[in-house]
Amino acid sequence: MEKEMNKNSVFRVGILGATGYTGRELVRILSHHPQVRIDFLGTSSAQGQKYFNIYPELCGCPIGNMTLTDEHDVPQVDVLFCALPHGIMAERAANLLVRGIKIIDLGADFRLKDPAEYELWYNCVHPDPDLLSQAVYGVSEIYRREIFTSSLVALPGCYPTASLLPLAPLLRHGLIDHDSIVIDAKSGVSGAGRGVTPQLHFSEVDANFKAYGVDGHRHRPEIEQELSKMAGGKPIHISFTPHLVPMVRGMLATIYVRVKDGIEEEDLRRCWQTAYEDESFVHVMPCGVWPMTKHACGHNSAYMQVSLDRRTRRATLVSVLDNLMKGAAGQAVQNMNIMCGLPETQGLASVGIWP
Amino acid sequence: MEKEMNKNSVFRVGILGATGYTGRELVRILSHHPQVRIDFLGTSSAQGQKYFNIYPELCGCPIGNMTLTDEHDVPQVDVLFCALPHGIMAERAANLLVRGIKIIDLGADFRLKDPAEYELWYNCVHPDPDLLSQAVYGVSEIYRREIFTSSLVALPGCYPTASLLPLAPLLRHGLIDHDSIVIDAKSGVSGAGRGVTPQLHFSEVDANFKAYGVDGHRHRPEIEQELSKMAGGKPIHISFTPHLVPMVRGMLATIYVRVKDGIEEEDLRRCWQTAYEDESFVHVMPCGVWPMTKHACGHNSAYMQVSLDRRTRRATLVSVLDNLMKGAAGQAVQNMNIMCGLPETQGLASVGIWP
Amino acid sequence: MEKEMNKNSVFRVGILGATGYTGRELVRILSHHPQVRIDFLGTSSAQGQKYFNIYPELCGCPIGNMTLTDEHDVPQVDVLFCALPHGIMAERAANLLVRGIKIIDLGADFRLKDPAEYELWYNCVHPDPDLLSQAVYGVSEIYRREIFTSSLVALPGCYPTASLLPLAPLLRHGLIDHDSIVIDAKSGVSGAGRGVTPQLHFSEVDANFKAYGVDGHRHRPEIEQELSKMAGGKPIHISFTPHLVPMVRGMLATIYVRVKDGIEEEDLRRCWQTAYEDESFVHVMPCGVWPMTKHACGHNSAYMQVSLDRRTRRATLVSVLDNLMKGAAGQAVQNMNIMCGLPETQGLASVGIWP
Amino acid sequence: MEKEMNKNSVFRVGILGATGYTGRELVRILSHHPQVRIDFLGTSSAQGQKYFNIYPELCGCPIGNMTLTDEHDVPQVDVLFCALPHGIMAERAANLLVRGIKIIDLGADFRLKDPAEYELWYNCVHPDPDLLSQAVYGVSEIYRREIFTSSLVALPGCYPTASLLPLAPLLRHGLIDHDSIVIDAKSGVSGAGRGVTPQLHFSEVDANFKAYGVDGHRHRPEIEQELSKMAGGKPIHISFTPHLVPMVRGMLATIYVRVKDGIEEEDLRRCWQTAYEDESFVHVMPCGVWPMTKHACGHNSAYMQVSLDRRTRRATLVSVLDNLMKGAAGQAVQNMNIMCGLPETQGLASVGIWP
Repeated sequence: MEKEMNKNSVFRVGILGATGYTGRELVRILSHHPQVRIDFLGTSSAQGQKYFNIYPELCGCPIGNMTLTDEHDVPQVDVLFCALPHGIMAERAANLLVRGIKIIDLGADFRLKDPAEYELWYNCVHPDPDLLSQAVYGVSEIYRREIFTSSLVALPGCYPTASLLPLAPLLRHGLIDHDSIVIDAKSGVSGAGRGVTPQLHFSEVDANFKAYGVDGHRHRPEIEQELSKMAGGKPIHISFTPHLVPMVRGMLATIYVRVKDGIEEEDLRRCWQTAYEDESFVHVMPCGVWPMTKHACGHNSAYMQVSLDRRTRRATLVSVLDNLMKGAAGQAVQNMNIMCGLPETQGLASVGIWP
Repeated sequence: MEKEMNKNSVFRVGILGATGYTGRELVRILSHHPQVRIDFLGTSSAQGQKYFNIYPELCGCPIGNMTLTDEHDVPQVDVLFCALPHGIMAERAANLLVRGIKIIDLGADFRLKDPAEYELWYNCVHPDPDLLSQAVYGVSEIYRREIFTSSLVALPGCYPTASLLPLAPLLRHGLIDHDSIVIDAKSGVSGAGRGVTPQLHFSEVDANFKAYGVDGHRHRPEIEQELSKMAGGKPIHISFTPHLVPMVRGMLATIYVRVKDGIEEEDLRRCWQTAYEDESFVHVMPCGVWPMTKHACGHNSAYMQVSLDRRTRRATLVSVLDNLMKGAAGQAVQNMNIMCGLPETQGLASVGIWP
Repeated sequence: MEKEMNKNSVFRVGILGATGYTGRELVRILSHHPQVRIDFLGTSSAQGQKYFNIYPELCGCPIGNMTLTDEHDVPQVDVLFCALPHGIMAERAANLLVRGIKIIDLGADFRLKDPAEYELWYNCVHPDPDLLSQAVYGVSEIYRREIFTSSLVALPGCYPTASLLPLAPLLRHGLIDHDSIVIDAKSGVSGAGRGVTPQLHFSEVDANFKAYGVDGHRHRPEIEQELSKMAGGKPIHISFTPHLVPMVRGMLATIYVRVKDGIEEEDLRRCWQTAYEDESFVHVMPCGVWPMTKHACGHNSAYMQVSLDRRTRRATLVSVLDNLMKGAAGQAVQNMNIMCGLPETQGLASVGIWP
Repeated sequence: MEKEMNKNSVFRVGILGATGYTGRELVRILSHHPQVRIDFLGTSSAQGQKYFNIYPELCGCPIGNMTLTDEHDVPQVDVLFCALPHGIMAERAANLLVRGIKIIDLGADFRLKDPAEYELWYNCVHPDPDLLSQAVYGVSEIYRREIFTSSLVALPGCYPTASLLPLAPLLRHGLIDHDSIVIDAKSGVSGAGRGVTPQLHFSEVDANFKAYGVDGHRHRPEIEQELSKMAGGKPIHISFTPHLVPMVRGMLATIYVRVKDGIEEEDLRRCWQTAYEDESFVHVMPCGVWPMTKHACGHNSAYMQVSLDRRTRRATLVSVLDNLMKGAAGQAVQNMNIMCGLPETQGLASVGIWP
């Protein structure tokens, strides 16, 4: 019904943090979205500049000629994408919501439901804890219904998306042991953003591979919160180690879980197939084919595969996505489509780039 | 007029060599082209297989489910893209043309106008030299008019496109010395195709940079043929050195030319701006901004910049494009749009991916 | 005593498989080894060629001028390094041993003690199973004593070395649960050798990350055999997933183990420190510093770090080495030094290259 | 004679700028140099820290345990290597020289002989212009004699070394036209040092290739100064374009020159062979083999090849070296060996790493 209504509407959108990589990726998608008009590119550092001054490859595009605006001067848009460091949207969201603006926050401010957890992991008191319960956690495939009616979506981090898509159905159907989950995740460098640090210097990263955040990464409580929900509220503690791969885009999670007695590999695969058969962006790969990060490069799909070792009763799950697409901007637009009653694949072309 | 006519038509297309990188890139573009239906994926090696068997990331797309067909069984399509090794289309083109099929040959068979040159560089007698004069050399910006009415387009190599776009206007307007042209070109590895050789082994290429074909590369006679035309028929000999960059996509040409007396840097830039002001895919960058290969990654644009050293009277021109897009599949579709009376930018989205 | 004796001796060595990457790495080390003379470079493909024809960067070195010899014409050397595909040395070792030649086999023929396991994983009957018990498994730090008196060393694979160094002391001292071991390992591409396959094409590997051998990799039985020994013979089954990183050299293993009740992070670290305090090539990193693959690039060291999550009682161990050095050629020379009564660090410089 | 004398001496050396990449490379070489003792690691940023705090891979080496010292507290060493930004050594060199310390300056302060040129390119008045004439320009193969008796060596930049080695003999023997020289040079990223800038962010550099400094790079006047000397004082103006390759180490220069009438390719090659036949670190490659950057990775050699196009009478020269070795630290140690009467190859192992 509503979808019918919105077939020809054009939605005005704004982007906060337009100069960062996630902002740039939103621009790429939304520029080609047939039912979107970008009205606002917000910045805290480049006010008054043309967008092509930051991204000169856009010197020939209309969007390149758009002027960056102070991020506090948000006009009356339909949807606002916020790609800002944590701590900012928590303070500003309420005011924007009362103006009738739908918010999709790609930052971390509304992901954790428990303000104490937020304080613990982000080292600051949450300024608007009431909003936490109002925010919907934006894994489209899991919370589609809630997203549809929400005005405030907290987009999950890239690691949580890559972890939850394979684990959620298995947990929901009780196929795996709660206390056995090990997530060994690997990410391209763009996930760290455009900020300049010695750790991201080309000469330090290239031809190098490392673990980081081994003692505790901010995406861990987020994953645990959601896994616990999938497990009917039973608290779940996981082992989670993120790694940095010398490449720009892409994320792969290798997940180890002990399966329940009597469960076979085929059961796990069938559980996934059932869960995702109607999904446009989650693909269980054909038997024997294992996803690699480049499969997902530049588009919004996630890919999965599974193998069970009967000796150890541990299954190895592998999931793959593009951290800037299904792990950030792509999923954000997927959520926008849901929120606005548009076809979910609108603007999210499905044939990716190769090689 | 004709464009009016074709506003809603759908063109049936086929791709010969669909499993190679150029074929794959054509699939990516044409799958999202609003006025194209892919009717045929031809192969010499994977007959009967689903396309997703070759490219498993397409397992969730309609095109992935398409079956690869023997490359000799070309159905009655409107346009046939041929991404085959040289020597094959030269024999087959005539038969396809009489069936009313428009051909865009991404291979080398119809680029050189002189059969003797073809024989010299490709080590075989051209089987159908009459077709050489019929074929149009498909740099869209230079031969648009001829492409519009042609049924056989010989798509230029990637190096020639990157060389001709900056040089053609300067030569046509007599701003540079004919005998001074040095083209130092650098390409990503995908330009070498999907064939397996020791030279393309990851461990040999990564963290490595090299020149190749220094004693003579097949793209040199092609560049010289076209430059000579631009110079009113005066034979031009160039120095041309291709290099391999440890990256997948992208091409950058650094070109050195001696400018005529009295010509200033601004004259060169203005000449370019005039030549390309109405072009959608060629961009003279703002002063002081130099193009890099990633600017063009995944889309059909070429970028250019120039600097003149008054001491030596030599100008340094830099041009950049994606070897698989403006250097191959992108330009092929641009030509198809021209041949079919479609808007030239149809299906060739202009906001590229970054980073 | 014997070391005293060998202070000025020069040992004649030969290398089978000299044209491969491991062979090349052996040449690099042994050329600068003060007590070694390379007498023989064996090949199955390049007989009669100068070594610099294969590796032109050696055109100015004496070793580059050495002629490659048929791999069957092994002269009377003191030590023979064999860097050949599996299946060949199993047939030839006995004959070489009777000639008094010490063998260090970098291949897989003598790693598994159980001929049935060999047959299962390498698809052929072992031609000389008696030799299996004679061969010493060459992790220098674990089997130094046995290596010292051995004439046949089976060099472990790179994954096993990276796995056993951190796990062996913890298992020996009973600090961890036997059935909880998950090894998530990542390797650079050179580990796959110099052979040409589509999977190792630069355009397929670059900017890509993938798991492989998830259903069972040949290094798994090798790791399990050794871990079981460390655990006093109790059979151990592990989860093991190798991954390919888009880089040439380097290996990192992230290992998850459940620790016994009462064991703290500090106990694990102290166990390592005690085990390795006198070792030249195994380094427990300072607290808070996590090893990355480039730390080990080009030299023979392995690095380790550990973190314990008290909630899950799982420890995360990270170990790093260069797959061609401590994972192959470096460890081979370390073993040679032990076998010949030389200082163990001879020829194995310890200050690595950076960046 | 003097060399005889120094056969067993040990030289005390110090390194200013020990935490940078060039400083680190000096440490790598000098740690294994049999006649050197590192007495001093100077720093402006990490005083009092252990060297392994900066480079944790050295946690197991003696040099790693050395304490970094304020760069102003230079002890009485025999040789001081200075790897500092320009402007510092110009002020400090005189005081160090009077203390009898030999200086090898890897920075830019003493390269240009003309103080006006220095001011023009480095935007500051040279504080000690008298020293300029005293400094020897440290291309070992060209100025060996002068280096031998010098106390102040100005090490050339990496681009100049890669340019001068192939050009110097050809100019000296009058084989090429002075006004025809085009140098198109490509460098790995480590040449830009360890400083953090947005341009060196991994996500900006990886899979990217670009020209920079097209309007004038500081190495150009240095190259021109030296080429003019080779040409008997006749001023030479060149075209010079540096490029950044997405790799850490390595440099390749493609050089275009017009050859004099009657000169053939073989004359150019013979000229090189004669010039370099007794050199340990400069290699004219066998006919048909073209050097690539990885040939030189990690060691002090330079490689060269040439091709002449008879149509244009232009020769294409390609030279390759490791920017941190023959382009910086390696050549610095080569010079130290010369200055100290040591064998020139001492500590500079010639079998490089591959792949």
